[in-house]
Amino acid sequence: MNKDSIKIFCPATIANISCGFDVLGLALSAIGDEMVIKKVRNPGLSITKISGLDLPKEIHKNVAGVAGLAFMEASEYKGGFEIEIYKKIKAGSGIGSSAASAAGAVWGMNYLLDSPFSQHQLVQFAMAGEKLASGVAHADNVAPAIYGGFTLVRSTEPLDVIPIHVPKELYASIIHPHIEIKTSDSRKILKTSISLADGIKQWGNVGALVAGLYQEDYGLISRSLVDHIVEPIRSILIPGFDEVKHEALGAGALGCGISGSGPSIFALSKGLKTAQKVTQAMSKVFENMDLSYDPYVSKINTKGIQIMTL
Amino acid sequence: MNKDSIKIFCPATIANISCGFDVLGLALSAIGDEMVIKKVRNPGLSITKISGLDLPKEIHKNVAGVAGLAFMEASEYKGGFEIEIYKKIKAGSGIGSSAASAAGAVWGMNYLLDSPFSQHQLVQFAMAGEKLASGVAHADNVAPAIYGGFTLVRSTEPLDVIPIHVPKELYASIIHPHIEIKTSDSRKILKTSISLADGIKQWGNVGALVAGLYQEDYGLISRSLVDHIVEPIRSILIPGFDEVKHEALGAGALGCGISGSGPSIFALSKGLKTAQKVTQAMSKVFENMDLSYDPYVSKINTKGIQIMTL
Repeated sequence: MNKDSIKIFCPATIANISCGFDVLGLALSAIGDEMVIKKVRNPGLSITKISGLDLPKEIHKNVAGVAGLAFMEASEYKGGFEIEIYKKIKAGSGIGSSAASAAGAVWGMNYLLDSPFSQHQLVQFAMAGEKLASGVAHADNVAPAIYGGFTLVRSTEPLDVIPIHVPKELYASIIHPHIEIKTSDSRKILKTSISLADGIKQWGNVGALVAGLYQEDYGLISRSLVDHIVEPIRSILIPGFDEVKHEALGAGALGCGISGSGPSIFALSKGLKTAQKVTQAMSKVFENMDLSYDPYVSKINTKGIQIMTL
Repeated sequence: MNKDSIKIFCPATIANISCGFDVLGLALSAIGDEMVIKKVRNPGLSITKISGLDLPKEIHKNVAGVAGLAFMEASEYKGGFEIEIYKKIKAGSGIGSSAASAAGAVWGMNYLLDSPFSQHQLVQFAMAGEKLASGVAHADNVAPAIYGGFTLVRSTEPLDVIPIHVPKELYASIIHPHIEIKTSDSRKILKTSISLADGIKQWGNVGALVAGLYQEDYGLISRSLVDHIVEPIRSILIPGFDEVKHEALGAGALGCGISGSGPSIFALSKGLKTAQKVTQAMSKVFENMDLSYDPYVSKINTKGIQIMTL
């Protein structure tokens, strides 16, 4: 492999894991973009190829470009980079399409320069791309894409990302119904205040979920995968949500919720077989509704972005 | 030791640990009540002695009595019990005085009957005592008193107590200024709604604190010991709170907050020496205010209630 060029896998990610709204995310193995990053002699950054989605190649209009620029401004490197993006994650799916591109760009560039920056810094650069995509420099998806596994974003200002232990038998099911929800709409629908009583339930569940992950206690993980605050409101925007959730839990899922701001719905299960059953059960609901969808079953990706053979 | 009679140490406890309002508590080693529980042939429950505090011996008016009755109603035991209570934890101090008596009674009775009930059930019986004391059947203090260490009460209906890993070098400082705050007042002062933004910060911190405890990451524990919601309001009721907290952090504490509903103030530190310094620094504030106080330094008590030699 030529060290001036790498091909990488940039994972899809689930943000807003039930009770962990705005703080808990995880990386997937079964779906992700591919990117090729090349070091070139001429200074500057260019996106030379994009396939799979109709996205702008102009650096300032592309999340990978904006993230890459943030990286290059902080770097002492005098040369340039070329980026090829092979999108597999659909835009607006709710599983971190923009984050994969932003995180992949900076991770790849860092690798080619022998890693001058930490994962923490890479998340900060990638957040610039997220700001272009959604107007908010959030780390919900770029953090798990870069760190892998489960991440808790304790704070974004200053940035504080905490990698959380991943139980060995944990699998994710994802179902992406082909409907459009704008991130801005799903933000607008939220209430700006909540009851203290609901807040207490929510932070009790977040603490318990983190404990469940460390203890590999699947029962506790299941009891904690509850969202009293955001899911009851946002699920209104996703036709069939309640039925999908009912079927997922009926098929043995530990929990089920909205991925990111939707429309994708995720479920977590113990063991691959259960996760497969759960994905099938979720799929059936959208089949009965005559709504097209993409189904996935995935191990939790504990490595994050990874090098592929060119 | 006669198996018909035991003497036990019933630890003081800290509830509402900063971000963990209403969910996170811990047990202390350095302060606690002592109780003697005796099996007697005649049915029924009696409190034969109380020292240290002027509390009613009538079973229905005493938290240990009420908790003990809840235990006996669920038990098949046909005989009776006698209880002696040696109070060392002052009433209204905010470090679980009523919880120690309630938890101690049911723990001791269970021990003498060869443990027919689980810790989970003992917490439920002890909660009946807490209901008498504060009007609310909460588990914030009885859970750590019975389980020991750090506990997270994910839910009270149904009861779900999660023991959390305790880092080896964690110590607590407590300072109890001799002022009176009624639990009912400190409940009333709270707002019934909070902003979603503050809620997100709070559950981010709870998740991070739990992760910090499992990872024994004292820096992370320190960054997470923040309460955006309750402390800013309740601290108004405790004269000198801001200065005490400032001095505690200045002396090296990882974090500092209100114990229970106050007036006691706790700090957590890494290592005994720092905890001693922190207690001294906190003490000085009340000395300068000419307010009398009780200072404590304590290891986290990972065992909870323990048998003493009679």
